[in-house]
Amino acid sequence: MSNIGPTDTSELPRFAGFATFARLPRIDQVSDVDIAVLGVPFDAGVSYRPGARFGPAAVREASRLLRPYHPALDASPFDGTQVVDAGDIAMNPYNIGAAIETLQHEAERFGARGTKLVSVGGDHTIALPLLRAAAAKHGPVALLHFDAHLDTWDTYFGEPYTHGTPFRRAVEEGVLDTEALCHVGTRGPLYGKADLDEDKRMGFGIVTSSDVLRRGVDEVADALRARIGDRPLYVSVDIDVLDPAHAPGTGTPEAGGMTSRELLEILRGLAGTTLVGADVVEVAPVYDHAEITSIAASHVAYDLVTLLAKERAGG
Amino acid sequence: MSNIGPTDTSELPRFAGFATFARLPRIDQVSDVDIAVLGVPFDAGVSYRPGARFGPAAVREASRLLRPYHPALDASPFDGTQVVDAGDIAMNPYNIGAAIETLQHEAERFGARGTKLVSVGGDHTIALPLLRAAAAKHGPVALLHFDAHLDTWDTYFGEPYTHGTPFRRAVEEGVLDTEALCHVGTRGPLYGKADLDEDKRMGFGIVTSSDVLRRGVDEVADALRARIGDRPLYVSVDIDVLDPAHAPGTGTPEAGGMTSRELLEILRGLAGTTLVGADVVEVAPVYDHAEITSIAASHVAYDLVTLLAKERAGG
Amino acid sequence: MSNIGPTDTSELPRFAGFATFARLPRIDQVSDVDIAVLGVPFDAGVSYRPGARFGPAAVREASRLLRPYHPALDASPFDGTQVVDAGDIAMNPYNIGAAIETLQHEAERFGARGTKLVSVGGDHTIALPLLRAAAAKHGPVALLHFDAHLDTWDTYFGEPYTHGTPFRRAVEEGVLDTEALCHVGTRGPLYGKADLDEDKRMGFGIVTSSDVLRRGVDEVADALRARIGDRPLYVSVDIDVLDPAHAPGTGTPEAGGMTSRELLEILRGLAGTTLVGADVVEVAPVYDHAEITSIAASHVAYDLVTLLAKERAGG
Amino acid sequence: MSNIGPTDTSELPRFAGFATFARLPRIDQVSDVDIAVLGVPFDAGVSYRPGARFGPAAVREASRLLRPYHPALDASPFDGTQVVDAGDIAMNPYNIGAAIETLQHEAERFGARGTKLVSVGGDHTIALPLLRAAAAKHGPVALLHFDAHLDTWDTYFGEPYTHGTPFRRAVEEGVLDTEALCHVGTRGPLYGKADLDEDKRMGFGIVTSSDVLRRGVDEVADALRARIGDRPLYVSVDIDVLDPAHAPGTGTPEAGGMTSRELLEILRGLAGTTLVGADVVEVAPVYDHAEITSIAASHVAYDLVTLLAKERAGG
Amino acid sequence: MSNIGPTDTSELPRFAGFATFARLPRIDQVSDVDIAVLGVPFDAGVSYRPGARFGPAAVREASRLLRPYHPALDASPFDGTQVVDAGDIAMNPYNIGAAIETLQHEAERFGARGTKLVSVGGDHTIALPLLRAAAAKHGPVALLHFDAHLDTWDTYFGEPYTHGTPFRRAVEEGVLDTEALCHVGTRGPLYGKADLDEDKRMGFGIVTSSDVLRRGVDEVADALRARIGDRPLYVSVDIDVLDPAHAPGTGTPEAGGMTSRELLEILRGLAGTTLVGADVVEVAPVYDHAEITSIAASHVAYDLVTLLAKERAGG
Amino acid sequence: MSNIGPTDTSELPRFAGFATFARLPRIDQVSDVDIAVLGVPFDAGVSYRPGARFGPAAVREASRLLRPYHPALDASPFDGTQVVDAGDIAMNPYNIGAAIETLQHEAERFGARGTKLVSVGGDHTIALPLLRAAAAKHGPVALLHFDAHLDTWDTYFGEPYTHGTPFRRAVEEGVLDTEALCHVGTRGPLYGKADLDEDKRMGFGIVTSSDVLRRGVDEVADALRARIGDRPLYVSVDIDVLDPAHAPGTGTPEAGGMTSRELLEILRGLAGTTLVGADVVEVAPVYDHAEITSIAASHVAYDLVTLLAKERAGG
Repeated sequence: MSNIGPTDTSELPRFAGFATFARLPRIDQVSDVDIAVLGVPFDAGVSYRPGARFGPAAVREASRLLRPYHPALDASPFDGTQVVDAGDIAMNPYNIGAAIETLQHEAERFGARGTKLVSVGGDHTIALPLLRAAAAKHGPVALLHFDAHLDTWDTYFGEPYTHGTPFRRAVEEGVLDTEALCHVGTRGPLYGKADLDEDKRMGFGIVTSSDVLRRGVDEVADALRARIGDRPLYVSVDIDVLDPAHAPGTGTPEAGGMTSRELLEILRGLAGTTLVGADVVEVAPVYDHAEITSIAASHVAYDLVTLLAKERAGG
Repeated sequence: MSNIGPTDTSELPRFAGFATFARLPRIDQVSDVDIAVLGVPFDAGVSYRPGARFGPAAVREASRLLRPYHPALDASPFDGTQVVDAGDIAMNPYNIGAAIETLQHEAERFGARGTKLVSVGGDHTIALPLLRAAAAKHGPVALLHFDAHLDTWDTYFGEPYTHGTPFRRAVEEGVLDTEALCHVGTRGPLYGKADLDEDKRMGFGIVTSSDVLRRGVDEVADALRARIGDRPLYVSVDIDVLDPAHAPGTGTPEAGGMTSRELLEILRGLAGTTLVGADVVEVAPVYDHAEITSIAASHVAYDLVTLLAKERAGG
Repeated sequence: MSNIGPTDTSELPRFAGFATFARLPRIDQVSDVDIAVLGVPFDAGVSYRPGARFGPAAVREASRLLRPYHPALDASPFDGTQVVDAGDIAMNPYNIGAAIETLQHEAERFGARGTKLVSVGGDHTIALPLLRAAAAKHGPVALLHFDAHLDTWDTYFGEPYTHGTPFRRAVEEGVLDTEALCHVGTRGPLYGKADLDEDKRMGFGIVTSSDVLRRGVDEVADALRARIGDRPLYVSVDIDVLDPAHAPGTGTPEAGGMTSRELLEILRGLAGTTLVGADVVEVAPVYDHAEITSIAASHVAYDLVTLLAKERAGG
Repeated sequence: MSNIGPTDTSELPRFAGFATFARLPRIDQVSDVDIAVLGVPFDAGVSYRPGARFGPAAVREASRLLRPYHPALDASPFDGTQVVDAGDIAMNPYNIGAAIETLQHEAERFGARGTKLVSVGGDHTIALPLLRAAAAKHGPVALLHFDAHLDTWDTYFGEPYTHGTPFRRAVEEGVLDTEALCHVGTRGPLYGKADLDEDKRMGFGIVTSSDVLRRGVDEVADALRARIGDRPLYVSVDIDVLDPAHAPGTGTPEAGGMTSRELLEILRGLAGTTLVGADVVEVAPVYDHAEITSIAASHVAYDLVTLLAKERAGG
Repeated sequence: MSNIGPTDTSELPRFAGFATFARLPRIDQVSDVDIAVLGVPFDAGVSYRPGARFGPAAVREASRLLRPYHPALDASPFDGTQVVDAGDIAMNPYNIGAAIETLQHEAERFGARGTKLVSVGGDHTIALPLLRAAAAKHGPVALLHFDAHLDTWDTYFGEPYTHGTPFRRAVEEGVLDTEALCHVGTRGPLYGKADLDEDKRMGFGIVTSSDVLRRGVDEVADALRARIGDRPLYVSVDIDVLDPAHAPGTGTPEAGGMTSRELLEILRGLAGTTLVGADVVEVAPVYDHAEITSIAASHVAYDLVTLLAKERAGG
Repeated sequence: MSNIGPTDTSELPRFAGFATFARLPRIDQVSDVDIAVLGVPFDAGVSYRPGARFGPAAVREASRLLRPYHPALDASPFDGTQVVDAGDIAMNPYNIGAAIETLQHEAERFGARGTKLVSVGGDHTIALPLLRAAAAKHGPVALLHFDAHLDTWDTYFGEPYTHGTPFRRAVEEGVLDTEALCHVGTRGPLYGKADLDEDKRMGFGIVTSSDVLRRGVDEVADALRARIGDRPLYVSVDIDVLDPAHAPGTGTPEAGGMTSRELLEILRGLAGTTLVGADVVEVAPVYDHAEITSIAASHVAYDLVTLLAKERAGG
């Protein structure tokens, strides 16, 4: 194939060279792009620990360790598919509304050119404009939302657009297919039982972190695939879906989470669905240690890219 | 109900305000108290890494993230039950005997007023005076002891009261109901086989960390509930029962431990028992990272408070 | 004297008890307040590393080490003067304008009651509303601004109120006495020479970090006192005035800074001026190590409180 | 028995005294040695994060926590068997070839004296000379290789001896029994599918990290024992077989790994095989936190020593 | 001017975008280059703590904070001079000889094109090939060597090319002008008095770290300028010249070092000399905290670039 | 000379081998000992952050970097003088009184054999028994006490022997020569002015940290030498005399401290006095970063050993 792949490790050691996701080419180095990894350095929407603005840079550095063949999915995602690092989007760090608009516009431009996005956040606020852009192209999309939290709160300090509210807004705006919505990995205390009731009313199913322990990754993946069917699917992964042991570098950690092995296995179990876009958010590297959160996030992004590439290859 | 709950997050962000457990009122702000979270800043009894004296402060800070509804137990523990942060007890940091006495006296005063305690340590030495106070009120109590270690050694450097000996002392003093004692999460090397023999002779059962892996949390919780029956139960959680990945911030870590998800699930499986008091100990925040140990401990304390609150509500 | 001082260390160890600044009483525990230490947990105005929202909590914890007698100033600031911890102000974390307004209003209320404020930030955005409140009471104030940066930029991403702009706004609004303005500790690259020219035009003098090295702390303090005279003085200390070795826990560190010893000596050299208010800002504890930044900031706040107390005592 | 055991904890606290593995005697303190723990401070063969040269020192410090009775294997490995800390081997840090030769020679000398080795690395390059020495004594050996990676690459930057190639070299040199080779814990992306094909051609079986999750530790251990039979067995444990949550302190971490509990359980399941030597490698303490990686590695080494001791005792 | 400067901060926040030194263009984005910042990710020559291979990436990230105007030197180094980030050179991580050769060749190519280099290491081994290339262009060069150590040892483990030997080799090879050599910042114990004698015989002067304290930065800079005169000058800065408080992230730290303020002041005092090349080495980010070492190194590199730019501008 | 020196670095890299202070022989490896470095792993006497029990181990590891020639003092302290690492003393971790007695007895035994001690703590409680032993041999001794604090408090929680009281006890017991006592580096707030008055009454002079800044290291050293004369001198260095930037790893840090360069220069200025013993205390490595505190402490101990060795060699 004639696409450009990652920098050859036998020519430049993995610890050397400008950091791009998985050592892939920058978007300006190629003409046609199938899949773009897009950095979204934004954290004005957080309610507790900030720092996710440095998430894209950290994931890029951690992704130096990725290699081009995915044995679990038996796929070479950079082979025959042009994957690039699209760099970071320039968002206003002081104005959530303006920032969301910029991202939506940019994401729609990628969609218009036929490029699929795996966005690396940034806080979870960014899922809303990304879902809007996905729906602009594909109509209302199915959603798998991996997260410790529901993120379907209404407002916080009067602000409707924060990292705790994107999916309620998305339902209200009609960009989600309410027949095929599911949270995975939920745990921890809530403000009240009404949180659950309202979430359910919006159409969300819930597979808690404890459900994953009890049912196992294969049964969970089977159930998720059944719920989604062949709908266009958006996957949003808040890295806090992992236990703080596996992802200390995040903003609102909750004990009792999933392991990175479980998360990756469930994602791989989504092969066969029709993925149209994805994000990995809430990596706050200043709280990380030895890059364990960034490495987990880079593997998640890599798996999402691989699912998109397989799909494109008819896989 | 007329009790005072946590500070409203919509008025003061969770990262703001004086730190109290779960943003609950201080004990001086209310008149009648059902459940008190009591800080016990003491670590003169440790044998290896000190630092647990800063445990209560760290758990308070980490508990800012807790919210008032517990979905897994379907309970609102601060609703109809007055839960408070009782602050830290003033213990002599140089004299173990004097310190123990102070704590026992203070704990008995809470008992006399009908307040149930969830104590946040502090090293495990503090379990002995807390058990004495529990027995003073309820008679000999059943004990579930979550810990990597047995804590039934005899003496260390001639000292009978250290963090390795509380439960032997408690058996000797008759404050435990020897029909209903169990260690959970035990692992790691011992000084000799006699450690196990003597422990068994005192009446303890053991569910090792590996047993939890092989049998699963539900089977373990069922077995524990069966052993305890309707006896008054004290639960003592040494945070080192968790694997060092989940609780690096502790004094005598051992590889091969439980996950925080397993611990929380087993605790929730104790709903229906007659809990009369509990502690969470051995959080040494200087060894922690990104508060993962303090967050786990704050969730454990929250679950213990919720069990007490449910029980009180007839739940 | 009848005022309430810090918790007695001989009764409760310094590592124990609810954290208040210097173990002082909370504001709700006393009726008349001379000096209040006010937490301002806000960081929506930062341009680089966020995290200063956790600054007040960290400074409180670090201030457990402070004791009530200041030998260098030969003063007992909590003796005869009622100093309190006023807790944290509740500011909107998503809306800079609303947050500034809340703080200004609150600070003016303190001023109206005759209470002087030492505010603990929070990012430097908060200096503007604090200066407005100071000027509302005292008229345009002299300003000593300890900082690596000028903070007299105009706008950033179109936003006029950020942590890089408070002093330009303050000059424009007329709340500063432009005869008596000085930056101390400035260093590091700028956007252009115009930054210096405009700053000078606003009336600011500059004592760079290198000037402090060459001239020594006593000569610098003398020059500052001479410039200020007996004008009402506001002191604003951005902790990044210290070298990153002394204050790693901040948002926009610059190499080549002052030592904490130099900063404290210069502050002490301000005895005899007419201090009317002060702040210590930009402590971002997640970047700190072993509390060295928070400890430095707590000593700065303690020195500022002592200057205010001495002044009140006619000192 | 007349052998010398660990320093008595009741005479010298575990945090005190010169650090030797498990507080065992140094090799110069005894005449006959059954099992030696040998430090191999070397990391010139790494491809990504260096630092494993400090591994032996870190494992020694972390092993202060080990005690002399192994309850899971019901064994007292230091009782009747002389186990020592053989110190660190002096290897050239700049010349991989010379370093390998030194280690092989030294390991063969241990073998000639009838001492079994548990080596503590150092990077994985060191497995090759250790296998050569094992084969020199026992003929081609069976190999269980716990690792995230295959380590059967060919060359890197033209260098045939690095931490990515030891097992290919070992197969080529005929020091491995190709009927009984297995990787355990493998995961993460590869350079290409050919990596797997070539690995298989060399004779390796693979139990991936996900296989361990799905099949459970007992089934895996049973299968491994069946594959090995009564062949002389060498066990090589790259600590990166653990998830980064359990072993951040390593050079090439991959998300989705095993827990330390799973690893220890599988190792214990090898009781009954004929272990002739073992290593634990790739502990890079500068990336560790609170010693969690070193503690895990010290437990692994302790379990390997115990297996050797049981075997010797006819166990 | 028509050269390309740094990315505009008002368009893309400083925390966003691909990391290049000071947000400058990559070398492939321009045709003619005056000054190149070159990453040299290499640490096979270290004798103690490795990790400097990650130095260039860390300095790039830390340099996001640099701005285009240098007030202390009153210069805009990126204005009228084309400065670029030349990326990382691809060096063999296992073979010191081959790596040195690659770097020498590459550096000579820059020299041949009229580009001046500020290299960012990497360990100090790299100074030798860089000096060879400088001498190839300019003849034997004067050398100012900022370092805690002499780096004029002979061999280590028989290896003549390590981070402790570059300047002895350089003297032997005749690439240094022995009339104008000086170490600055030296301190800490040596192997023997002969180290000093031999160093002196090679022609080196020494300004110790204590000399800097006693004599002050201006007197030191004056003396250095006098010694150098108008010879072509190479400046080599080992970041361990700074005290470990200012530069923890390095391989062989020694107590009692210079402050970053002193180092920057002395460097600025070199304005007026004829600088022909420079390096900043031994940044080992894994030992760093909050980027304080990387920030200091990025300021050093920025000052060196500015000196080169001023010189070119006739400044 | 026939004494045994440090392990040869050209045979075993400095990062390899069992850790002893400066790679010196253990005490059991030689027959006659001139100077012993003694570890005192004890921290039961602390009032704030514990952790100094791990100080000796950390200083040993950090001292791997020391070399045998001291250029500033032009001395080879291990040449002709037998210096050893005497290991750690076994002290009761739960009983301050018993621990003090053990240490006093052990120190007196060293004195009786003519061995001079440089003790590495441990908390400052240990200075009292060490001073008693020094006085037992030499009569009342002069004392230079480098510390942020006075350590002449009376009792704390009724305990007369803690890390805040050793020097008051020593004065009371008559083991100090009250004509020649001086604190150096003092700073930070006190409990009251009486602290200073009582301290002065005991005979102590004070050179504050600010005095060092204003007067310079040479003038301070001259004054100290003048005060001491030819009396037998004991030097006690609490590492918190350094600023937290230089020594984060300690128990009661105070901003505004000395630099490690200043401390080492003043110590070197003591050449010519009659040093009879010394200690370095309060290194709490868990609060350290990149060993900067341990490295500073190891340099301090090395300078103290060198002063003793020079003196023995006739100065």
